[in-house]
Amino acid sequence: MRVSQFPLNTLKETPADAEIISHQLMLRAGYIRRLASGLYTWLPLGLRVLRRVEGIVREEMNRAGALEVLMPAVQPAELWQESGRWDFYGAELLRLKDRHDRDFCFGPTHEEVITDLVRREVRSYRQLPINYYQIQTKFRDERRPRFGIMRAREFLMKDAYSFHIDGDSLAETYRQMHAAYTRIFERCGLDFRAVEADTGAIGGNASHEFHVLASSGEDAIAFSPAGFAANVELAPCPQPDPAPAPGTEMAKIATPDVHTIDELAGFLNIPTEQTVKTLVVAASEEIDADLVAIVLRGDHELNAVKAEKHPWIAEPLRMAEAAEIRTAFGADPGSLGPVGSPIPVLADQAMLGMADFVVGANEDGHHLTGVNWGRDLPQPESADLRNITEGEPAPDGSGPIEIRRGIEVGHIFQLGDKYSQALGARVLDEDGREQVVTMGCYGIGVSRVVAAAIEQNSDERGICWPTAIAPFDIALCPIGAKKSQRVREAAEQLHDELQAAGFEVLLDDRGQRPGVMFADMELIGIPHRIVIGERGLDAGELEYQDRRAPEAEHLPLDNLIDALRERLRG
Amino acid sequence: MRVSQFPLNTLKETPADAEIISHQLMLRAGYIRRLASGLYTWLPLGLRVLRRVEGIVREEMNRAGALEVLMPAVQPAELWQESGRWDFYGAELLRLKDRHDRDFCFGPTHEEVITDLVRREVRSYRQLPINYYQIQTKFRDERRPRFGIMRAREFLMKDAYSFHIDGDSLAETYRQMHAAYTRIFERCGLDFRAVEADTGAIGGNASHEFHVLASSGEDAIAFSPAGFAANVELAPCPQPDPAPAPGTEMAKIATPDVHTIDELAGFLNIPTEQTVKTLVVAASEEIDADLVAIVLRGDHELNAVKAEKHPWIAEPLRMAEAAEIRTAFGADPGSLGPVGSPIPVLADQAMLGMADFVVGANEDGHHLTGVNWGRDLPQPESADLRNITEGEPAPDGSGPIEIRRGIEVGHIFQLGDKYSQALGARVLDEDGREQVVTMGCYGIGVSRVVAAAIEQNSDERGICWPTAIAPFDIALCPIGAKKSQRVREAAEQLHDELQAAGFEVLLDDRGQRPGVMFADMELIGIPHRIVIGERGLDAGELEYQDRRAPEAEHLPLDNLIDALRERLRG
Repeated sequence: MRVSQFPLNTLKETPADAEIISHQLMLRAGYIRRLASGLYTWLPLGLRVLRRVEGIVREEMNRAGALEVLMPAVQPAELWQESGRWDFYGAELLRLKDRHDRDFCFGPTHEEVITDLVRREVRSYRQLPINYYQIQTKFRDERRPRFGIMRAREFLMKDAYSFHIDGDSLAETYRQMHAAYTRIFERCGLDFRAVEADTGAIGGNASHEFHVLASSGEDAIAFSPAGFAANVELAPCPQPDPAPAPGTEMAKIATPDVHTIDELAGFLNIPTEQTVKTLVVAASEEIDADLVAIVLRGDHELNAVKAEKHPWIAEPLRMAEAAEIRTAFGADPGSLGPVGSPIPVLADQAMLGMADFVVGANEDGHHLTGVNWGRDLPQPESADLRNITEGEPAPDGSGPIEIRRGIEVGHIFQLGDKYSQALGARVLDEDGREQVVTMGCYGIGVSRVVAAAIEQNSDERGICWPTAIAPFDIALCPIGAKKSQRVREAAEQLHDELQAAGFEVLLDDRGQRPGVMFADMELIGIPHRIVIGERGLDAGELEYQDRRAPEAEHLPLDNLIDALRERLRG
Repeated sequence: MRVSQFPLNTLKETPADAEIISHQLMLRAGYIRRLASGLYTWLPLGLRVLRRVEGIVREEMNRAGALEVLMPAVQPAELWQESGRWDFYGAELLRLKDRHDRDFCFGPTHEEVITDLVRREVRSYRQLPINYYQIQTKFRDERRPRFGIMRAREFLMKDAYSFHIDGDSLAETYRQMHAAYTRIFERCGLDFRAVEADTGAIGGNASHEFHVLASSGEDAIAFSPAGFAANVELAPCPQPDPAPAPGTEMAKIATPDVHTIDELAGFLNIPTEQTVKTLVVAASEEIDADLVAIVLRGDHELNAVKAEKHPWIAEPLRMAEAAEIRTAFGADPGSLGPVGSPIPVLADQAMLGMADFVVGANEDGHHLTGVNWGRDLPQPESADLRNITEGEPAPDGSGPIEIRRGIEVGHIFQLGDKYSQALGARVLDEDGREQVVTMGCYGIGVSRVVAAAIEQNSDERGICWPTAIAPFDIALCPIGAKKSQRVREAAEQLHDELQAAGFEVLLDDRGQRPGVMFADMELIGIPHRIVIGERGLDAGELEYQDRRAPEAEHLPLDNLIDALRERLRG
């Protein structure tokens, strides 16, 4: 391809409204353009990347035995009413009416449609397992679309749905999908982790998320060098050692102007690990109280997903308002504590290992020091309620935890029979009895992979694509082409030869100065660059630059294709 | 691929609600399934065909220098308001509101979005011409979706939009697109015609439709063996020879119970060519009348597109109600005529060549015979108002006209500046002056091509795919595989060898009887079939059946790949 026939849409300025690096670079490098909030047009350069990711996904899904289908984007409301999600799904579901005033939605996902297909087509256990997938445009009407295509409203997704006669078969396909996803993200050249995940609103038994590691990621993931990996939402914290014996008496002290844990630790000149924070949340209907006091070590963070699983806590988690707190405690949020709490106390389990700790006195401007369980207050109800932190032991004993940010690009679920039960997808089993099928679902945010790859692969000059998903493999930059017919001809010839050898080549035939060419090709992120000039032709050696390497090297012209092949493979 | 891993969804019965052959066969052969009115899921087999058509379209569009993009399916109303189509487009436009109550539509076409892109990205004539295309799911909320994917609401379309500094450049790209479309439909193996077409509501200067010839086609097209081709809507009729001199006197006769042209010709024992029919339609505001009487030779058909272009006729064409006709004429529709007409008379030009013709007497149950222009009534206002008929000379003198039915699968337009003017897409020209760009648009109904190909390629046993778009090239049918390990192994080996040689192969490894296998493979339409049995293996020759050939032949096993290659090329 030649730039004269494949115009670039690079921008000099970084668009002001683009917050993260992938959004900035996709706009600057001319990969996408915004049409409206959360709606983007893929320009030719961007679409090449999207198609390469799509191609890898398709190959690996086919290799894993999944069957590609294409379901309508527009889905009738009746199916969503059957599954119960029409009312449940909320404002992210783009609902619409056709000319006859019938209800439809623009599908954000296709569990209902595929289960409807399977209940019609599949009659016998002999037809199972079966795994259907599609690569299709989805719509989720995000409240706050942002970060470009990272959290767009319309996006390209690979969604797969498998059906089984029993849980063993589901587990087997689930393992295959886990392996296929691993191959997909490896082939895309991404640094990623598969992590255990919460099954959340979609329900089901087991679930893994695939995260591309990048500092801009919205999720925190915990992993150990030896293989443990889980979303911090889900990673179990270690049991504490038993608390040491009390060392001091409990005492009430005045703590004027102390409202936060940091202020408290500073005021007392103690580490935050010795302080306790008390958070007041709404209670569930399981207990005879409106509010519950959750106590955590001062440096620990409440984990909402874990808290919501405790029977005392209302779901979704709701923090109490200041007025509710004052009514219950007669004190402000900065001075609360479990000693003499007027509401039930629920302690994070790490607190069971603490002694001589400091809590609020339930009296404005006062705290209690030297507090100990069993002496100053009863042993509390406790549970794992916090986020695991860096350096703690992994729950499987595989070493110390590291925390990294991740961008979720894939998610696999063992769904069970939630949809097949609701829609009545049954088959005859080996004994001729009707049985509800068991189901798995497996998603990849294909367009999001593109953005995530950029988050992980860029520098101050632009994108540094992994070769497998780059829009072009090699950029050809002729120097002095305007004046030199020899350079022009050599560039054209090299273009044709490299293309014939199977490389995706972009020849910059604009006749621009080297600086302009190099800046554009680096911004775009083409991973390999060849410079063609009189001097190189004279010497029989062309300058080759790996986009990530600090220095250029020189490759012999008469063996260029082999040399490039070697470098592209690496 | 093996049937055990690629299950077939063939049906024994033809679904009752499928009216045309492609719809019946796509359901029976397991290519598609209906989700809701006008919404279909593509099953794995169907998707393979769709992707092959898509691949040919993409290759030829790329070869023609068009640039692939992907625009959002969901489009903001503001752009459609700028172009004026938000109000104009009617109920086929699926309008929707997002969670913030903003108006959007599910795009049926993308002129507005691409023009918006171009007005932002293109600043200079140097960046023109440019031709963007996409292959994307569209939605048109048809009043009466039918014929399966032939007239579905959601469908896959290739839409391209070119932008130009002037009409010459547009005409050049238009020619390239005409050539690309010709290559596409040729490569798909279809019998098609490119025909001149009406530019209709979309506006513009020139337009061609590409029709696949099939008796179920909704359009009539007129063509001559020597190259003329036009939609009958548009094909000009030849000028008549001057009328002969009158031969008889005008006479009024009683014609009891005669209401139609056929009844009149039968009653008088004359050919319908000597009768005249009078149609009453609404008048435009151009003339001082509410109605106009259009007179045509009895065997001719009114052409609504031509009639609407006449200044006297209201657009859209509206036939008068019986009550309006009785009020104006004092007679019923079966007895009307131009002699003494109370409303303006507009004659089809073919009538100028008639003498001694028969017309209604504007008196119930009576007609006038021996009527002649100039003597019995004044020479009328006339125009070409009818459909051309088989056997008439083509307007370009290229011989006699044939009429065939066609399915429109492509449409190319020289749009002019309709959208670029409305949206203000301007560039600087060579002299630095702002100029509105000129535009073309080019569509292919990718999913419709699949249905049209079946309409043209089927027999009583099923589909007969052209090899280029078949889901598989070759079916392998092992005979007696359950008992014979040798047959099983030979089939597996052949499957792998043919696949390695680049063929798309489907091995029927279900262990079914030959009749069941052959019926399924013929219904599905795989164009080439190889039978593997003990006898063939003994003889070193396998039975080969071309799906369209009356007889099987035998191919030597040791040269099978070359022999197949030769036959697949044909």
